[in-house]
Amino acid sequence: MADNNVRQFGQNGIIQPLLTDLYQITMAYAYWKSGKTKDLAVFDLFFRKNPFQGEFTIFAGLEECLKFLGKFRYSESDIEYLRTTLPSSTEDAFFDFLGTLTAADVKLFALAEGSVAFPRVPLMRVEGPLTVVQLLETTLLTLVNYASLMATNAARYRIAAGNLMLFEFGLRRAQGPDGGLSASKYSYIGGFDGTSNVLAGKLFNIPVKGTHAHSYITSFNGFAELKNVTLQGRNGGKPQDLLKLTLAWKEKLLSIFNVISSEASEGELAALISFAIAFPDGFMALVDTYEVQRSGLLNYCAVALALNDLGYRAIGIRLDSGDLSYLSNVSRHYFTEIGRKFNIPWFENLMIMASNDINEETIISLNEQGHKINCFGIGTHLVTCQRQPALGCVYKMVELNHYPRIKLSQEVAKVTMPGSKDAYRLYSESGDALVDLLQRSVEPPPKVNEKILCRHAFEESKRAYVKPSKVEKLLQLYWADGKIVKALPSLEEIKGKVTSSMKTLRSDIKRNLNPTPYKVAVSDKLYHFIHDQWLKNAPIGELS
Amino acid sequence: MADNNVRQFGQNGIIQPLLTDLYQITMAYAYWKSGKTKDLAVFDLFFRKNPFQGEFTIFAGLEECLKFLGKFRYSESDIEYLRTTLPSSTEDAFFDFLGTLTAADVKLFALAEGSVAFPRVPLMRVEGPLTVVQLLETTLLTLVNYASLMATNAARYRIAAGNLMLFEFGLRRAQGPDGGLSASKYSYIGGFDGTSNVLAGKLFNIPVKGTHAHSYITSFNGFAELKNVTLQGRNGGKPQDLLKLTLAWKEKLLSIFNVISSEASEGELAALISFAIAFPDGFMALVDTYEVQRSGLLNYCAVALALNDLGYRAIGIRLDSGDLSYLSNVSRHYFTEIGRKFNIPWFENLMIMASNDINEETIISLNEQGHKINCFGIGTHLVTCQRQPALGCVYKMVELNHYPRIKLSQEVAKVTMPGSKDAYRLYSESGDALVDLLQRSVEPPPKVNEKILCRHAFEESKRAYVKPSKVEKLLQLYWADGKIVKALPSLEEIKGKVTSSMKTLRSDIKRNLNPTPYKVAVSDKLYHFIHDQWLKNAPIGELS
Repeated sequence: MADNNVRQFGQNGIIQPLLTDLYQITMAYAYWKSGKTKDLAVFDLFFRKNPFQGEFTIFAGLEECLKFLGKFRYSESDIEYLRTTLPSSTEDAFFDFLGTLTAADVKLFALAEGSVAFPRVPLMRVEGPLTVVQLLETTLLTLVNYASLMATNAARYRIAAGNLMLFEFGLRRAQGPDGGLSASKYSYIGGFDGTSNVLAGKLFNIPVKGTHAHSYITSFNGFAELKNVTLQGRNGGKPQDLLKLTLAWKEKLLSIFNVISSEASEGELAALISFAIAFPDGFMALVDTYEVQRSGLLNYCAVALALNDLGYRAIGIRLDSGDLSYLSNVSRHYFTEIGRKFNIPWFENLMIMASNDINEETIISLNEQGHKINCFGIGTHLVTCQRQPALGCVYKMVELNHYPRIKLSQEVAKVTMPGSKDAYRLYSESGDALVDLLQRSVEPPPKVNEKILCRHAFEESKRAYVKPSKVEKLLQLYWADGKIVKALPSLEEIKGKVTSSMKTLRSDIKRNLNPTPYKVAVSDKLYHFIHDQWLKNAPIGELS
Repeated sequence: MADNNVRQFGQNGIIQPLLTDLYQITMAYAYWKSGKTKDLAVFDLFFRKNPFQGEFTIFAGLEECLKFLGKFRYSESDIEYLRTTLPSSTEDAFFDFLGTLTAADVKLFALAEGSVAFPRVPLMRVEGPLTVVQLLETTLLTLVNYASLMATNAARYRIAAGNLMLFEFGLRRAQGPDGGLSASKYSYIGGFDGTSNVLAGKLFNIPVKGTHAHSYITSFNGFAELKNVTLQGRNGGKPQDLLKLTLAWKEKLLSIFNVISSEASEGELAALISFAIAFPDGFMALVDTYEVQRSGLLNYCAVALALNDLGYRAIGIRLDSGDLSYLSNVSRHYFTEIGRKFNIPWFENLMIMASNDINEETIISLNEQGHKINCFGIGTHLVTCQRQPALGCVYKMVELNHYPRIKLSQEVAKVTMPGSKDAYRLYSESGDALVDLLQRSVEPPPKVNEKILCRHAFEESKRAYVKPSKVEKLLQLYWADGKIVKALPSLEEIKGKVTSSMKTLRSDIKRNLNPTPYKVAVSDKLYHFIHDQWLKNAPIGELS
């Protein structure tokens, strides 16, 4: 049914040629009227600024773009709709023409999905008949922009969290169902360990994780509601009364927690017992429904110790409110004390998961305060990329019928680099990425161990020689002759690419505070080519 | 094919029961193990704070929620996947149970879609068997959160823009394809006049709008590329040479614009002529590809005047960069001067559309500066809701088996209001909304012209009597017995509801700067009920 559709097409059904801006269609008509449909165009897809005040971006979304190319074709109902939408003066033959369009004559070059990427270096270069290549614009941008933003955001959380576990919990706050699904996929690629999103688990084979909500706890009032309190030991035997075992442990714990029995919620304890009976091998629970220290932790530990009597090891707790640094330290303190007092060594290593409105800055601040958290569950800030909810990728024509095209602007940053270009990443002997070098496509590639002049594209005096130990050609051909022409990596391989690609960046480029910009340069030939074109296209006025 | 799927199911195929958090499924298992699956639960879906530092929210997403209820059923492949995901100790019979679940026994009460809504007033009350009602949580939140946020954002832009036209242009920067599609739909509901998103136009019958991109202009180098320069007059006759007519007008305009002929780009003029030939009745074009005043405006006016010779009226221009207030004034100045000089009265009313990175604050600032813009095209800030990219709707259990449930918290704002509640909006004689009153569902509704005590839920001394001229019951039954039981409004009707509902709000509640909070109150009975439950559930410690 609906879900099969997603699998069958390998893509959300709403990704289709009409998922575009109307102006692409009106331009197509104007090109058609002007006899320009078969002009050979080259477009660059790139961004101008790294997101999140950082100095790197992860490129993602390529596979979705390629799948879209594969199914790019206007359906009859699309064309019927367009007939009602374009002016009535639009010629009939144009709609017939639209119906014949496919991406068969398009070539798409791209960075490897999961690579680190930098401003102005094309993430994709798309070549082909002007009309088709233009018609792809909006959909390609839609598929790359959020995917790359999300993967980048996740990679930043990964840096902040070091080796701690990270789970994406954002579905309910995401920008629409697909925002949620994409967030799960691309945060996994970017460095997360899994998601709470079951559909993402099913479709992309991503680890899914989840315990229970506060409502599970509040749905129990007391022991009377426990219809079953017995549990068989892990190694078999007669089922035993988990409630009785738990209450015995609770008595022993009161003095350690320095509370009286009535302070700890009975409903909460009943809920935890029932949850432990359902998941004796995976007992992980919220402890902050009523009060962490005087109720939740005490109750949790009592159940965990009772489970231990039956041979089960509890997993840990989740903190979803309050001062996470303080509460994690308190929790670890009790786990340690109990582990020692009752000689249960693993108890002090119970997992502490935190999940209340966490963002990159929270993690950095928690690191500074000192915390005992093992795992973060991250929602809103991660999936909506709250700090910067959009990546500004653009898609600019750089060549038409082998003639360069340039878009001028009063802002130098918005001037496009004309002509078909290639991009190379030059590495030091130790494997650090030194610079991304843009060249005209007609230039020979830079050579290992040869001195190469790398220039700033717009500031004449900024130049440096680089002698690379390794040269990587960044833009590879992925689509030609109507099909994918390069083996696509699996999701795990893309995730691995993020890790390996990030490793080539010096840490000062990746740091959160005042990161160093990575260098993007142009060859001497491209430098002169840009400036010639600029002068050629900038109008000359007359002083008066 | 793919697009038919969207139409057939009336909903994006990825909206399905597995689009949820895993913990909903683990809770379902624990409930099932505890024999609680048939417990009768009541959940409230509500938010705690209006978005965008404002004091109102538009409720949207209801129709999608109801469609989801209609197709709520785990497929075989879903259950197969869940078997591999839950612990191996999970009992087989639970999966059989999951396979039988539907929303047939669920009741859903909701506000009318498009209503203004306020913190703590339930947008929905969902009643039914505990397991099912809990399993709906994440998906309902996903469908309501972004839809409501988007509609609210659009309504705020509508206030800022007054009667000016507003178009949504955000697809390429949206958070995924569905983020883009939802943005088009809900910004239309919230007060926009249309979208650039063609698929949204096709699926939801929303007006679509679009001209061309800068690349259209840069794709022309000069007149040599114009394969056709003739255009028939609007009222027939022999096709005439539009290039020749245009060049004659350009000569006449040079002195008005005080430029020399070479300053205006020939490629731009060629592009405009070809675009005018394609859309003679809808000539609307970008004028900022090279230079607005010395090239774009001059070229545009020359073509528009040539079209006028042939009986066509041009539509207007789009400004996509620079100082929009200044450039719109400059443009209007020339349109006026040309209209007067050549006695073409409509020329001074040419439409000026602006579209460069505009947000609510930009519009307010432009209003203050004085501008001559008629129409805004708004992208990134609108669709990503940059100022606050998530609405924090939550879904809380308030009753189980007719017993109230409360979630306590160290933060008063996070304490839930226990018990099944109804909500009434009380109006003044002039039709202003005065207060939203929450009552226990068992209380009789407030009566028109009778004094009603309205209390603050948590501050004892804040009370006021209200004598309403009109009482509106906010939560209406939309889903029961497995089907939609109330006629659903069309998109246009929902859009109308936003307008009429916003009109009932005093302007100080709607203003951008320091808006007055709208009052949400509880009945005296509900007040005491909340506080009784609070005391009953808060643990008592012992001073030591």
